[in-house]
Amino acid sequence: MISFESFKENHKICFGSDNHSGAHPKMMKALEAVNYGHAPSYGTDPLTKAAEDEFRKHFGSHAQTFFVFNGTAANVISLRALAAPYQSILASDQSHLHWDECGAPEFFTGAKLLLCPTQNGKITTDKLTDHFVRRGDQHYSQPRVLSLTQPTELGTVYSIDELKSLISIAKEHGLLIHIDGARLANAAVHLGVGFADLTTQLGVDVVSFGGTKNGLMFGEAIVCLTPASAHAMKYLRKQSAQLPSKTRFVSAQFLAYFQNDLWSEIASHSVTLARYFRKQLEQIPSLHFVAPTESNGVFVKLPQSIVKKLKDKFFFYVWDEKTFSCRLMTTWDTQQSDIDAFVTELKSLLQNKEG
Amino acid sequence: MISFESFKENHKICFGSDNHSGAHPKMMKALEAVNYGHAPSYGTDPLTKAAEDEFRKHFGSHAQTFFVFNGTAANVISLRALAAPYQSILASDQSHLHWDECGAPEFFTGAKLLLCPTQNGKITTDKLTDHFVRRGDQHYSQPRVLSLTQPTELGTVYSIDELKSLISIAKEHGLLIHIDGARLANAAVHLGVGFADLTTQLGVDVVSFGGTKNGLMFGEAIVCLTPASAHAMKYLRKQSAQLPSKTRFVSAQFLAYFQNDLWSEIASHSVTLARYFRKQLEQIPSLHFVAPTESNGVFVKLPQSIVKKLKDKFFFYVWDEKTFSCRLMTTWDTQQSDIDAFVTELKSLLQNKEG
Amino acid sequence: MISFESFKENHKICFGSDNHSGAHPKMMKALEAVNYGHAPSYGTDPLTKAAEDEFRKHFGSHAQTFFVFNGTAANVISLRALAAPYQSILASDQSHLHWDECGAPEFFTGAKLLLCPTQNGKITTDKLTDHFVRRGDQHYSQPRVLSLTQPTELGTVYSIDELKSLISIAKEHGLLIHIDGARLANAAVHLGVGFADLTTQLGVDVVSFGGTKNGLMFGEAIVCLTPASAHAMKYLRKQSAQLPSKTRFVSAQFLAYFQNDLWSEIASHSVTLARYFRKQLEQIPSLHFVAPTESNGVFVKLPQSIVKKLKDKFFFYVWDEKTFSCRLMTTWDTQQSDIDAFVTELKSLLQNKEG
Amino acid sequence: MISFESFKENHKICFGSDNHSGAHPKMMKALEAVNYGHAPSYGTDPLTKAAEDEFRKHFGSHAQTFFVFNGTAANVISLRALAAPYQSILASDQSHLHWDECGAPEFFTGAKLLLCPTQNGKITTDKLTDHFVRRGDQHYSQPRVLSLTQPTELGTVYSIDELKSLISIAKEHGLLIHIDGARLANAAVHLGVGFADLTTQLGVDVVSFGGTKNGLMFGEAIVCLTPASAHAMKYLRKQSAQLPSKTRFVSAQFLAYFQNDLWSEIASHSVTLARYFRKQLEQIPSLHFVAPTESNGVFVKLPQSIVKKLKDKFFFYVWDEKTFSCRLMTTWDTQQSDIDAFVTELKSLLQNKEG
Repeated sequence: MISFESFKENHKICFGSDNHSGAHPKMMKALEAVNYGHAPSYGTDPLTKAAEDEFRKHFGSHAQTFFVFNGTAANVISLRALAAPYQSILASDQSHLHWDECGAPEFFTGAKLLLCPTQNGKITTDKLTDHFVRRGDQHYSQPRVLSLTQPTELGTVYSIDELKSLISIAKEHGLLIHIDGARLANAAVHLGVGFADLTTQLGVDVVSFGGTKNGLMFGEAIVCLTPASAHAMKYLRKQSAQLPSKTRFVSAQFLAYFQNDLWSEIASHSVTLARYFRKQLEQIPSLHFVAPTESNGVFVKLPQSIVKKLKDKFFFYVWDEKTFSCRLMTTWDTQQSDIDAFVTELKSLLQNKEG
Repeated sequence: MISFESFKENHKICFGSDNHSGAHPKMMKALEAVNYGHAPSYGTDPLTKAAEDEFRKHFGSHAQTFFVFNGTAANVISLRALAAPYQSILASDQSHLHWDECGAPEFFTGAKLLLCPTQNGKITTDKLTDHFVRRGDQHYSQPRVLSLTQPTELGTVYSIDELKSLISIAKEHGLLIHIDGARLANAAVHLGVGFADLTTQLGVDVVSFGGTKNGLMFGEAIVCLTPASAHAMKYLRKQSAQLPSKTRFVSAQFLAYFQNDLWSEIASHSVTLARYFRKQLEQIPSLHFVAPTESNGVFVKLPQSIVKKLKDKFFFYVWDEKTFSCRLMTTWDTQQSDIDAFVTELKSLLQNKEG
Repeated sequence: MISFESFKENHKICFGSDNHSGAHPKMMKALEAVNYGHAPSYGTDPLTKAAEDEFRKHFGSHAQTFFVFNGTAANVISLRALAAPYQSILASDQSHLHWDECGAPEFFTGAKLLLCPTQNGKITTDKLTDHFVRRGDQHYSQPRVLSLTQPTELGTVYSIDELKSLISIAKEHGLLIHIDGARLANAAVHLGVGFADLTTQLGVDVVSFGGTKNGLMFGEAIVCLTPASAHAMKYLRKQSAQLPSKTRFVSAQFLAYFQNDLWSEIASHSVTLARYFRKQLEQIPSLHFVAPTESNGVFVKLPQSIVKKLKDKFFFYVWDEKTFSCRLMTTWDTQQSDIDAFVTELKSLLQNKEG
Repeated sequence: MISFESFKENHKICFGSDNHSGAHPKMMKALEAVNYGHAPSYGTDPLTKAAEDEFRKHFGSHAQTFFVFNGTAANVISLRALAAPYQSILASDQSHLHWDECGAPEFFTGAKLLLCPTQNGKITTDKLTDHFVRRGDQHYSQPRVLSLTQPTELGTVYSIDELKSLISIAKEHGLLIHIDGARLANAAVHLGVGFADLTTQLGVDVVSFGGTKNGLMFGEAIVCLTPASAHAMKYLRKQSAQLPSKTRFVSAQFLAYFQNDLWSEIASHSVTLARYFRKQLEQIPSLHFVAPTESNGVFVKLPQSIVKKLKDKFFFYVWDEKTFSCRLMTTWDTQQSDIDAFVTELKSLLQNKEG
């Protein structure tokens, strides 16, 4: 067998992203457990039916779930189901949809993405209605979807009340609601609520439900909460090249994810470690934070002069090259000792700098 | 842990498809072996670099490989790299591209699919030039790509000479060449040649190289053999929602696939078993075959009256509901005893029918 | 003033197409008549309202009409209103949509075009249901629209009964109906019926109603006969770059077109002249006709050896380069003497050939 | 003949838009002059060749011109020629492309529109490079085109030096240059330069050259200044449903437009009248202007309380409903007396308001 071990050497402690971690051991076990014999392909196997049922337990009995490979796909296929090309999609001016998908939303939907101003990564209600003044004007791409990232790209979490306000305004103006929930479990844990409280109960239409950033090897779910949004979904998924042939391997991971509330265990670990990280960093008076830490990421500005040295020992991303705001992400396998090592090194570099 | 065992019960012997089988044990081992610590995401990890190198060994030192999730994606992204929307793509009138992708080629490329007549699933040279008579006519979608499925959807294999003839005509008329190679390994084994002999040496531009149908859990490769075809590929892949975040898990499987010629072992097994299957069936004089068996599928017409009974015991697809032509696929885990059981049952049903 | 006269010289008698002729004098007068002062743009002017009302007189009180520039646009925007990208559009294997739009239908709709076999240019009912056997199969682009060209590209006309049969089958299978009516007036005259008899009364959803080929300088109409098809049309038209800014100049021409049944006068002239043409040609025993002459085109096979010589004196198109089937089109300004000149020359060439 | 006169009644003096005016008398004469006999369709007629030559006189001997119906089309087809779907197009945050095309740019190109901050409607150089920091990053839609509106949507004109600066930065970063020149003639007149000085000499790739807003009944030109941009243009135009069949009627108008510098006469009239308008309004001390008046539009804030009354007598648009900034457009048939009447009424309303 190939010496896969050789690739392991010199791994730095990593706060790069929750998709830098591997598969959670229970996911790996699930993959092994279902790797027997033959199973019908393209989502028609019994494991997939069972996993779809599991989603119904969390999102309500009317939820219809469609597994896909990755988060970009979950988002753009969801949006295909909600918006026609002559319509527009409202998203935050920090949104992954706008900045990090190489134009996938526009390519898949043919529609326009319109940006909404944010505070701490969250869309504010005050300017939202500006987008609706040209309702009915044939020259203006008609707003049809509000896409909310929960938690946001800055690691903050919309409260239930904030969601209610935004969704209420949106619905008054005829919009449908999409949640980009690549890390939705972290938001649920932070708020101490269930998935339905964050979505179904608030009138959300479709959720992109993350797996890969929550311990899966691969796999995301499009959760349709309204019949209209699910109506053509199986065709949209196929035409969008996202119907897994050996679907059972996605489904098995999601079955494991929900079993014994593993989802909550993973999310709690990540969120707790991020809080711990924040607390340690707050003890360094010279640091400024970019946003509250409400899920599994700490955003903090670091002095430019020490960032390179820190990166020699730890893997993390500079989020904004202008302000040297850095993103420190925790995940299911982050250890408290990883954080302690980082903070110790940071303190030492800051002292040397000052000294 | 969830009782995944419960889903196993009553599994029929299956000749449904090579994507009904699970992951080859060596793939599963590779997945386990690389499931350690953190790795850079989105194809920037060392395992992915190593896997890309492995493809260069087989396809030539200039090959540039891009991993994606599934075969539909490998095909349509390849075509995006080769054809503009005002151009057309020539494919066989039996092609998966036309019949089984829910319009994904048209959706992703915006281009037109033009069908070519076939014999035994293979495009014939005689009518190919019909497509070129309107070269330069602004009203006519301009032919730009010839897409060849190797092996074909009917389990036949283009010979090197047949490929040379088709590619030569195509290139004379300014076309680029795409190979839909979801099962290319089977063709290589059947012809006793290497991958480059079937592609690089013949002037092919891009290959969709299959993994999932050859023992992988998931994962395919777009192999660009010309610089022009690779030029924008990383953006096309991302925009097409097919950049895996935890790429190492695709790469590790392909590393295992090429190690010690596992690819050849798997393909040989499948092809040999299909030949055996054919030979057993040929001993039943009343049966008619649809096409030669040159890879891992036997296409045979079965009497309508017994198909249902056979399907009660074995899983397989009726390929053409009008002629009751049936497709019997072998895969890496097909056993000779599976085939024997099928043939025995078939003989028995035929005798009862006649008796 | 520029010497536009200089461009006139040496004009051949032309049977090339009904879009080779200029604007009918009454259209030109209408353009002059409305070229005063300022008018609201983008379809909000009173002339446009009046023209839309005129269409309601002919297509029924629920008809909603949207003016566009040309026939390609009328077709593809109509199809955008009827089909989603994961659906397919059934059209004849002779259709302009397939052969002569440089892939515009696929580009605008993202959907798949599926071809239906024809007899005399008309889709036959016998194989139509073949397209519906995979209804509900996620891998198959789902048939949603039947597009009928009336008159057909071969100058034949579907009878009311033929339309009823095709539409009845289509509707049983959940399809919507589009009429490509670039020359619909000619069909109406041939059948001796009104526009509603050919469309509204038969359950048609959307008509592409031709102007340019019927005496207008430019301008076509999308006539929506169902509320659903009209629902997003104003946005689809704008996004498709087909909202004329000085709309009054399209509308005025259509007002003139319907005034005092000018439409009927123009169509009758064209159809009558084509019948005359056919009759003259039928007196030459050696000629073979490709299809019945039921609107304004005669399709006849001419000996290859004389075609070039004929083309030196007359402008017309060889429709099929293999069979030397030629298309001879009449239009609003075709003269009987033009036809006589052609027939005389043809006879002379044939005699010389034989002699 | 229909009483087109009846539609004329009660026309208000109109400063709505230059597309509210009709066709210039010389355009109408050109249309009449070429309305004879038959001409080859789809741009193959001699008038079209002559008009294309005329463009070469103004834009340089390598210019290749393609006529289309309207300005939206000229823009989006130009952009199709310059940008692939994975690339992005930089346009001003005031641009018609973004605000008034119902998403046509995204729909036709599949690419992303990125907005640049402006001053007086003109993109400033200072933040332009922000868009290039993620060059080569597969997650980021790659900037490929800078689209400049000349004159801008606020009636200002980029100076030659401003164009040089912007284009120089853009080209350093690998961008192609598109000019949205719906009113380019007005900019040329304002700056006292020729069309090539504003485009060809500065390295512009493609110009959308306006006709409809400059006295034509309909018709715009896509002027390709580089071979690469023209390469596939005839197919892009056809597939985009913008190939006029009776092309001669567009071409004849453009021939007339360039004859005896009619273009300059029309533009000078419009620009001069706008300057006059501005001058009259500047005599009212209480008014605030939104931007300099450099082409044919005056943008001025009017007290909300009098706008409605003014609109009862004159047609114009409120440009910004929040600030009551109003747009007053002149065109080829605007009369000084129209302006005087407006100013007199405005003064009277302002006095009454104060009184």
